[in-house]
Amino acid sequence: MGIRVGVAGASGYAGGELLRLIAGHPEFDLVAATAHRQAGAPVTAVHPQLVGWDLVFAATDAATLADADLVFLALPHGESAALAAELPESVRVVDLGADHRLRDADAWSRYYGGPHAGAWTYGLPELPGQRAAIAGATRVANTGCYAVAITLALAPLIAAGAVSPADVVVVAASGTSGAGRAAKTHLLGSEVMGDLSPYKVGAHQHVPEIKQATGATGLSLTPVLAPMPRGILATVTAVPTGDADPRAVLAAAYADTPFVHLLPEGAWPHTAATAGANSCHLQATVDVDSGRVIVVSAIDNLGKGAAGQAVQNANLMLGLPETTGLSTFGVAP
Amino acid sequence: MGIRVGVAGASGYAGGELLRLIAGHPEFDLVAATAHRQAGAPVTAVHPQLVGWDLVFAATDAATLADADLVFLALPHGESAALAAELPESVRVVDLGADHRLRDADAWSRYYGGPHAGAWTYGLPELPGQRAAIAGATRVANTGCYAVAITLALAPLIAAGAVSPADVVVVAASGTSGAGRAAKTHLLGSEVMGDLSPYKVGAHQHVPEIKQATGATGLSLTPVLAPMPRGILATVTAVPTGDADPRAVLAAAYADTPFVHLLPEGAWPHTAATAGANSCHLQATVDVDSGRVIVVSAIDNLGKGAAGQAVQNANLMLGLPETTGLSTFGVAP
Amino acid sequence: MGIRVGVAGASGYAGGELLRLIAGHPEFDLVAATAHRQAGAPVTAVHPQLVGWDLVFAATDAATLADADLVFLALPHGESAALAAELPESVRVVDLGADHRLRDADAWSRYYGGPHAGAWTYGLPELPGQRAAIAGATRVANTGCYAVAITLALAPLIAAGAVSPADVVVVAASGTSGAGRAAKTHLLGSEVMGDLSPYKVGAHQHVPEIKQATGATGLSLTPVLAPMPRGILATVTAVPTGDADPRAVLAAAYADTPFVHLLPEGAWPHTAATAGANSCHLQATVDVDSGRVIVVSAIDNLGKGAAGQAVQNANLMLGLPETTGLSTFGVAP
Amino acid sequence: MGIRVGVAGASGYAGGELLRLIAGHPEFDLVAATAHRQAGAPVTAVHPQLVGWDLVFAATDAATLADADLVFLALPHGESAALAAELPESVRVVDLGADHRLRDADAWSRYYGGPHAGAWTYGLPELPGQRAAIAGATRVANTGCYAVAITLALAPLIAAGAVSPADVVVVAASGTSGAGRAAKTHLLGSEVMGDLSPYKVGAHQHVPEIKQATGATGLSLTPVLAPMPRGILATVTAVPTGDADPRAVLAAAYADTPFVHLLPEGAWPHTAATAGANSCHLQATVDVDSGRVIVVSAIDNLGKGAAGQAVQNANLMLGLPETTGLSTFGVAP
Repeated sequence: MGIRVGVAGASGYAGGELLRLIAGHPEFDLVAATAHRQAGAPVTAVHPQLVGWDLVFAATDAATLADADLVFLALPHGESAALAAELPESVRVVDLGADHRLRDADAWSRYYGGPHAGAWTYGLPELPGQRAAIAGATRVANTGCYAVAITLALAPLIAAGAVSPADVVVVAASGTSGAGRAAKTHLLGSEVMGDLSPYKVGAHQHVPEIKQATGATGLSLTPVLAPMPRGILATVTAVPTGDADPRAVLAAAYADTPFVHLLPEGAWPHTAATAGANSCHLQATVDVDSGRVIVVSAIDNLGKGAAGQAVQNANLMLGLPETTGLSTFGVAP
Repeated sequence: MGIRVGVAGASGYAGGELLRLIAGHPEFDLVAATAHRQAGAPVTAVHPQLVGWDLVFAATDAATLADADLVFLALPHGESAALAAELPESVRVVDLGADHRLRDADAWSRYYGGPHAGAWTYGLPELPGQRAAIAGATRVANTGCYAVAITLALAPLIAAGAVSPADVVVVAASGTSGAGRAAKTHLLGSEVMGDLSPYKVGAHQHVPEIKQATGATGLSLTPVLAPMPRGILATVTAVPTGDADPRAVLAAAYADTPFVHLLPEGAWPHTAATAGANSCHLQATVDVDSGRVIVVSAIDNLGKGAAGQAVQNANLMLGLPETTGLSTFGVAP
Repeated sequence: MGIRVGVAGASGYAGGELLRLIAGHPEFDLVAATAHRQAGAPVTAVHPQLVGWDLVFAATDAATLADADLVFLALPHGESAALAAELPESVRVVDLGADHRLRDADAWSRYYGGPHAGAWTYGLPELPGQRAAIAGATRVANTGCYAVAITLALAPLIAAGAVSPADVVVVAASGTSGAGRAAKTHLLGSEVMGDLSPYKVGAHQHVPEIKQATGATGLSLTPVLAPMPRGILATVTAVPTGDADPRAVLAAAYADTPFVHLLPEGAWPHTAATAGANSCHLQATVDVDSGRVIVVSAIDNLGKGAAGQAVQNANLMLGLPETTGLSTFGVAP
Repeated sequence: MGIRVGVAGASGYAGGELLRLIAGHPEFDLVAATAHRQAGAPVTAVHPQLVGWDLVFAATDAATLADADLVFLALPHGESAALAAELPESVRVVDLGADHRLRDADAWSRYYGGPHAGAWTYGLPELPGQRAAIAGATRVANTGCYAVAITLALAPLIAAGAVSPADVVVVAASGTSGAGRAAKTHLLGSEVMGDLSPYKVGAHQHVPEIKQATGATGLSLTPVLAPMPRGILATVTAVPTGDADPRAVLAAAYADTPFVHLLPEGAWPHTAATAGANSCHLQATVDVDSGRVIVVSAIDNLGKGAAGQAVQNANLMLGLPETTGLSTFGVAP
């Protein structure tokens, strides 16, 4: 008998990717995949990539999930706290939503509105000390997709004192699955194919999380919607504080991690190379003209940016090897 | 110690997918990945999706591959026969190229030119009797990508006498990876994005293979290049010979196969749902106006259409469960 | 003072393309662009490609449009008849919807439901005699997008007795704008990019129109949704009745038309080459194996398939040169 | 008899777009379209979007072009100077290449190598005083595609003293046609679809041109290849030097220009909205967290970024209205 896991909010894109990963995980047995409007429908009606799996969405309630060993919450922002409160403490929980990421209640209210549900252990194992913290936790807040890409690129440089935390400029482009599966005109294929467009410029709700996770004190983030289903490419620039080689800092930070890869000199990240994988590809240089450090990172927003990361956290919480059921190799071309 | 496998021609797209599958296969150990021009280069310089794998292309010669238990040949058409002839009979071989697919030497010469290398066991396990034949063979000719999609849609209907073999009309669209990794202007992203265009209309070299595999005696095939990296969608129409329900025929034919799925009524195949998987999705109906049977199939041309199929054949040849190391679930969206 | 034209239903994709063409038309002055829910909104909020045009959507009612010389109706199916009935006979009308295309009331009811509004002059000037009929009409039913692509490929061959009308097999793939601008999950960029999928297989509502326009008596149509914003590629196959060269038949049929081009031998149509243009590209051959005639046509579904065609019809109705304000050259790559 | 224009290097993407614009220009008559390897081939073999135009590539030599009134040079970098030197001074020349853009010979040599051919009048009419300078010139260096997008966003802010020129950070993504029509593996559709990847990070050859055109003294530019055929989206951030409203500065700078549009507040540029047009769409804000000014601009790299801009310059040089033969409206969706 394996470890019993449940997924709440399994009808979204992150939920579908969680189901795919759980199906391939050697230790996990799915006890329930829940949904709101899709409750009662076959999972394959929403996720045709899972054809062959005879599974029906259950309704989203605590009773359905209470006898799981671990539950993944892939709910809209603001819905995780209530459900989590109904689950016994013995049920481990990984929340893919934003509800429990921020330690700063004011920042939460400013960007999300409503009361702050309180911070959980922050689910980015590659941050110093965090792997052990996650392993000892029963409630983990999965890192947001932009935050994963940007934090892995930036946090070691700030921590090492190699760049100033005060003037970080980021432009990060995401594939459309990051915007979810709800039908909206601006997300239609007709609108996004052949198009690049920024959104939430100057005030994105992920800024406080990224500052908290990286130590940045001044951060300009411009998110861009890109014409591809998956992937985030984050270009992070910061001002060096000395002569430290950014590649050396990153190489040291990720020497022992299975999922974060500093590319060989001259190679730059491709989002397509991370599709379906839990990997993050990094490269860094110092700009000849401006002297700024430029770090570029690529992830799959549904992989290391959501479902893959969540399984990685779950593995740690359950005492399994961190890489169980996860791939570092993307499906490309 | 696992089963020792080698890949000749590992720098192409099918070769890259083979490496990815071999890396995730619990019984396979890679002994060599060979290439021509890329010999000596790191595999990740060509296949960035494999970052983290410290592997260098070897030169393509028989000595490098001779101590493998099984060798996959992913070489350009016409190059497999010579290399295979140099490998000891004890080395099992799966040829992803066209060299050994056709039993009809005249058809070979007409479409490919040059001498016919002779037919090997045809590597489509879902054909009647073929699973056992493959299990007993040491040389297997992997099915071509278009042939997989069309044969799985059509062969059971002809075999059951449900449709006439004399008037089959197929339009099949393929993603660009089916055209290979050689740099050609008409395959540039600028040319293919936003574009659909047919090619080799009226005389495609896969026609004799498809006729051999399906039993069709008259076949019109129009291949189309589609603006996506992976996937084949084949629309197969034929004239019914009686009142047989095509869905019932297909359901019976694939009742016991792990990779071929007849979709529920009303659902039609999506190529995206098969990306990265070894699955084939099928649906069928009878056209209200013309009375023709229409069957549509979707595969990943690099999965069930090439590398996945090859691993499935290798599993059978080696006495492993057919599904070892293969997924039925696609990476979508 | 130019010719006064109005557009009803200007917030959809065909409506936006009409506005673009009207802006570039040397004889047309726009009197009103109407919409339902968008009434009162700036046109550029919906159609950002028209930035710089200070235009607001009016409400859709007959009074707003009654003093135009010509009105384009780009309304949902079933809404044209009522509005047209309220417009004075002196106002010429081109209906881009399906309401007045079919002469067969039964076929209308079967596919669209509801009462049949009656047939108008059929708006495909390239059909024999139709250019004069359109020039003399005050009410014209614009051809449907699939019907344009298929009819231009097929009608001359049937008319010339070169192919049998009884066994026509068509697979036609369309870009996503053909499915409209309403927000639906299956049309999201995340769903369509990287995907091909058929829809309405075996019973598409355009079949009666295509049969009426081409003279086909037996027609199998499989529509496919393709991962691109614009374009239709139709593959039409039929059984030859003699030795007529299909290229010669098509060359003769379109010798004097400005928008339909038979490509040089060996060249096959690309949808991208027609983007933004009112052109149709054709090629034909006889299949070596089956003996079937294969004709492939490419159009822009919003161009020759909708708005371009509508302007062409309007030009004829108003006594202008057929090509006024229209381009035969696509925006590619 | 119209104005006689020629195009040298007409087989590339910018060359094809020039031909399309010339065909639609009411005053231009094409005297020759030249190419190297394609000399003698029909233009439509390379540019299928021009089907219907019975035109053959001439060889690229000065004699062919010497009796034109104006010649567009769309040649590879380094080839313009020699050809231009052979043309009589009476022939006006617009060079779409980089040869004559830089005033700083050292910067030229550092990024391009070889001797500096000398600067021509800089072809960006929207810069202060430049419209008159272009009108009076016989040799004009067309602005580079990235430089157009970035300069239009940044130059007015530096000129007005609204931002510091010393710390400008730009991330700019381009569609694949910006990389040209030469067949290269990394530009294959299989490689670019679904992928974002930066290139020439930290040392792009366009940096000196952008600094010269904008007045920036410190500039970090990260170019990104995006999965679309056309379009540049430039995100430009800079440090404000006071309280000037960046929107007000941009509105004033472009109040009288026909092609540059500051969008209404809340709307952000879409590259798709500029496809096929000569327009530039701009929006600006001040980042809540960092206080940086963020300006985003979108152009069509082949339109305002190359061929459209070249026609605009030619119009000015020839005393025609600036907008002749150019559209501000894009082909979208």
